[in-house]
Amino acid sequence: MAKYSIGVDFGTLSGRAVLVNVVTGEELASSVLDYAHGVMDEQIPTGRKLPPDWALEHPQDYLDVFAHTIPDILKQTAINPADVIGVGVDFTACTILPVKKDGTPLCFIEEYKDNPHAYVKLWKHHAAQDKANKLNEIAAKRCEKWLARYGGKISSEWVIPKIWQVLDEAPEIYKAADRFIEATDWVVWQLTGVETRNSCTAGYKAMWHKREGYPSNAFFKALDPRLENVVDEKLMRDIKPLGARAGTISVAAARLTGLLPCTAVAVGNVDAHVCMPAVGIDGPGKLLAIMGTSTCHILMSEEEKEVPGMCGVVEDGAMPGYYGYEAGQSCVGDHFAWFVENCLPAIYYEQAKSQGVNIHKFLRQKAEVLKPGESGLVALDWWNGNRSVLVDVDLTGMMLGMTLLTKPEEIYRALIEATAFGTRMIIETFRESGVPVNEYVAAGGIAEKDPMTMQIYADIINMPIRISGSSQGPALGSAIFGAVAAGSAVGGYDSVFEAARILGKLKDTVYTPNSENVKTYDKLFNEYRLLHDYFGRGANDVMKRLKEIKKEAKGI
Amino acid sequence: MAKYSIGVDFGTLSGRAVLVNVVTGEELASSVLDYAHGVMDEQIPTGRKLPPDWALEHPQDYLDVFAHTIPDILKQTAINPADVIGVGVDFTACTILPVKKDGTPLCFIEEYKDNPHAYVKLWKHHAAQDKANKLNEIAAKRCEKWLARYGGKISSEWVIPKIWQVLDEAPEIYKAADRFIEATDWVVWQLTGVETRNSCTAGYKAMWHKREGYPSNAFFKALDPRLENVVDEKLMRDIKPLGARAGTISVAAARLTGLLPCTAVAVGNVDAHVCMPAVGIDGPGKLLAIMGTSTCHILMSEEEKEVPGMCGVVEDGAMPGYYGYEAGQSCVGDHFAWFVENCLPAIYYEQAKSQGVNIHKFLRQKAEVLKPGESGLVALDWWNGNRSVLVDVDLTGMMLGMTLLTKPEEIYRALIEATAFGTRMIIETFRESGVPVNEYVAAGGIAEKDPMTMQIYADIINMPIRISGSSQGPALGSAIFGAVAAGSAVGGYDSVFEAARILGKLKDTVYTPNSENVKTYDKLFNEYRLLHDYFGRGANDVMKRLKEIKKEAKGI
Repeated sequence: MAKYSIGVDFGTLSGRAVLVNVVTGEELASSVLDYAHGVMDEQIPTGRKLPPDWALEHPQDYLDVFAHTIPDILKQTAINPADVIGVGVDFTACTILPVKKDGTPLCFIEEYKDNPHAYVKLWKHHAAQDKANKLNEIAAKRCEKWLARYGGKISSEWVIPKIWQVLDEAPEIYKAADRFIEATDWVVWQLTGVETRNSCTAGYKAMWHKREGYPSNAFFKALDPRLENVVDEKLMRDIKPLGARAGTISVAAARLTGLLPCTAVAVGNVDAHVCMPAVGIDGPGKLLAIMGTSTCHILMSEEEKEVPGMCGVVEDGAMPGYYGYEAGQSCVGDHFAWFVENCLPAIYYEQAKSQGVNIHKFLRQKAEVLKPGESGLVALDWWNGNRSVLVDVDLTGMMLGMTLLTKPEEIYRALIEATAFGTRMIIETFRESGVPVNEYVAAGGIAEKDPMTMQIYADIINMPIRISGSSQGPALGSAIFGAVAAGSAVGGYDSVFEAARILGKLKDTVYTPNSENVKTYDKLFNEYRLLHDYFGRGANDVMKRLKEIKKEAKGI
Repeated sequence: MAKYSIGVDFGTLSGRAVLVNVVTGEELASSVLDYAHGVMDEQIPTGRKLPPDWALEHPQDYLDVFAHTIPDILKQTAINPADVIGVGVDFTACTILPVKKDGTPLCFIEEYKDNPHAYVKLWKHHAAQDKANKLNEIAAKRCEKWLARYGGKISSEWVIPKIWQVLDEAPEIYKAADRFIEATDWVVWQLTGVETRNSCTAGYKAMWHKREGYPSNAFFKALDPRLENVVDEKLMRDIKPLGARAGTISVAAARLTGLLPCTAVAVGNVDAHVCMPAVGIDGPGKLLAIMGTSTCHILMSEEEKEVPGMCGVVEDGAMPGYYGYEAGQSCVGDHFAWFVENCLPAIYYEQAKSQGVNIHKFLRQKAEVLKPGESGLVALDWWNGNRSVLVDVDLTGMMLGMTLLTKPEEIYRALIEATAFGTRMIIETFRESGVPVNEYVAAGGIAEKDPMTMQIYADIINMPIRISGSSQGPALGSAIFGAVAAGSAVGGYDSVFEAARILGKLKDTVYTPNSENVKTYDKLFNEYRLLHDYFGRGANDVMKRLKEIKKEAKGI
């Protein structure tokens, strides 16, 4: 009798469940539910308005995803719930909420419903920037050695700035919260009835280290004396590695989902990292790039190295037993969208229309016939700062080589190439730091839909590129972790690596470097690197000075 | 009884005559004739095809301008030709033609009609680039000291490369030509019956120097032994200063034009330089900028200094008795046109249309409300290379500071600012070389029609800007030189400086620097200068390397 695992992927606006055959990897059904409250960035349900930069969610929406999507896929496929051996979930991160000891979110309690701090702070809640700045300053002053693991800077999106904001602005919520917990761990708790914490979010978002633990209480005290014992009072020191079992479906969760009690549940995971086994990655040296509006890179290694400009390095952070490195490019698809919105001339729309071709396709047709180097352009892909390897939000975009004959498609292609050069900088930085990169797998919208861009990437990084075989990478990855939580005794797997090899999916398409193009792009990359270092490493801080002048001009 | 002077301005596509009252400066009438043959860049009248980069004209068209426009303005105003005391002409340059001893163009002679080299080579005939390259190489090797007066490089557009091309490709034409002559001198010859040569074209286009004469015969021999005596055989060593009288209307010219014989005719002039008196410039330190697709700067000084990157410095080159300096920016209006054509998004056209506003006005409305520095952008205005002060056609454009919020109008304004920074580099280079710049007068289409741009220029160069008062600046300037050729005895002037003060015209508008903007632009100019020097003076020759890569990619 076939066995199945369910993966549930919680995105920013909706949750999706997928049912997977744990032997064939076939995705038999999927079901999506949009969050009823969506992203709350203007007001909370009581009507209370939110300041700028806030982004909240409602935890009831997550429960509704379980209640709707799991029964739906069971119904669609008419399989026996007894044949579902495991469940895994992944979530956006860092997305956290304050809860009581029993897991009840504070926003479920009448007394706190009108307090914005009682809700889920979504990953893109950016109102704790001042806290992050202070934290970075204090950590640097104290020479906290964990700082280097995060490229020297922690983000305002992460756990401690967000908790610190609650403490400062709503001490009553801080006090009432028995726990602050990642949403991924909270939904697992709702399935199992047991609180667990996963190594991925603990490591990447809460500065936890498998051997060294959290930063010291003295550090937290230096931030604010009231935070001295924040780890023991509000978090948890017991961290489970990815691939572990969090527990089994509770009676309450069985009622909610239609699954049987005792079905295995994996520890919580994160939407990007969970994709690793979904594309068949089963060990170190294989880089996964999830390419969308921005790009997230995940890579495993057997050693912990200090690699400049990483978002983080975490043991068990991607798959158990390895060091997971995360790097990022803050502007990829966003670049191309900016160009189309702000720079694509009317005449191209007219020509596209008269040829009956979609404008994006029209532009691509013009860009893809260009040869590498033919435009004479080179750009720095910093329209949204540089995440890796410079970790500098104050850098801005640059392009050079324009002449009166420069065409829009040449600019467009130069932007694509610039993001690929940015990727190559990351790869070369890994290698120069002693972290091998031997394979490159791409997932996400661009990887799936944009062959021209993928060929450019292959030519620029001079590596073949394989593409994720599932368009539901995160949900498939979660299902794989569910099958591992179940274990081989019930038809699952004892090792996520084995599961990855069997259930991971790649398309047949391979983008193979063209040796002529590689030669030209090597030359262009040398130019990129020279400009990257000149503008990015302090020789000419013109971009920062222009930002200062801009602020003065705007009176901010 | 009022006296009048006629100025005839020969442009690239048409000629225009203007009748001016020599006491009031009033422009009483004007008349234009398009050249029947236009610019011949595909074939000559016999049907013979032209190679790429050629640009010819037909001298009959110039005679037709005299025959049509002068009678026309006389008729329009019904004035007595006896009251016309002088005529002046100006022309594009270097625009030259081969003629017989009596002034007959070779292309008028049956035998040569089918030979393209028998026609006028227009200023923008670019098929002699290989000759210019060779000439520059040989001159540099021989350490010819005159080379420094031309920014170290002479252009393929100038006299010797053009003559050399004739010699090489059509030695029979070279042999048959008794003279090679600038069109401006040839049309004066047609009016007076006497061959003269003017100091402006001789100095700026034929490497002539008032005290040192032409380059040595040894130099010309080094180019090609057949050129050893080119000056004596084909040009003329007797050069008349601007402001001198070339002669008087001949009997034949009287028949052609309706003017009386003995009317004074000024020596030939050039369309840019002739504008100096037309805007009232009467001495050194007053810079004239003629701002159109490109910008030409003319400035006089009492001393001959070596100013890096000038197009030339010529005694009597702009007005008699002073050293005339010419500088240039190869891409000004062209920048803005490139932007509008290639970068202005469809949505702006839609919005402009729905508001019933012209797209250029719509864009300007958005750009002019921006504060200096607000965009965070800075650009290098090198889309068409850099003429002054770097004299480098292989430089290309650069822009930096872009973010995902950067708007088209910000890019547009940054391009305008970049051209103004380029102007400031020229002004500062003059000053640093000991050539004072105390006043700034602008003429040309941009000066007349674009107040936003002119205010930006005033703020960036931190000088008030006055605007030419006549929209027929060259024709007015020619008429002024005509009145000077006539002299005070017949109601004209003995000094072009006096005539300039009385007849030159400026608008009442003055663009006065805004001190707040000046402060911000000073900071931005520092950034421009830093980047200008970094990319323009050899620290990072990325632009040239990209051009090489581009050539390889295109297989050229």
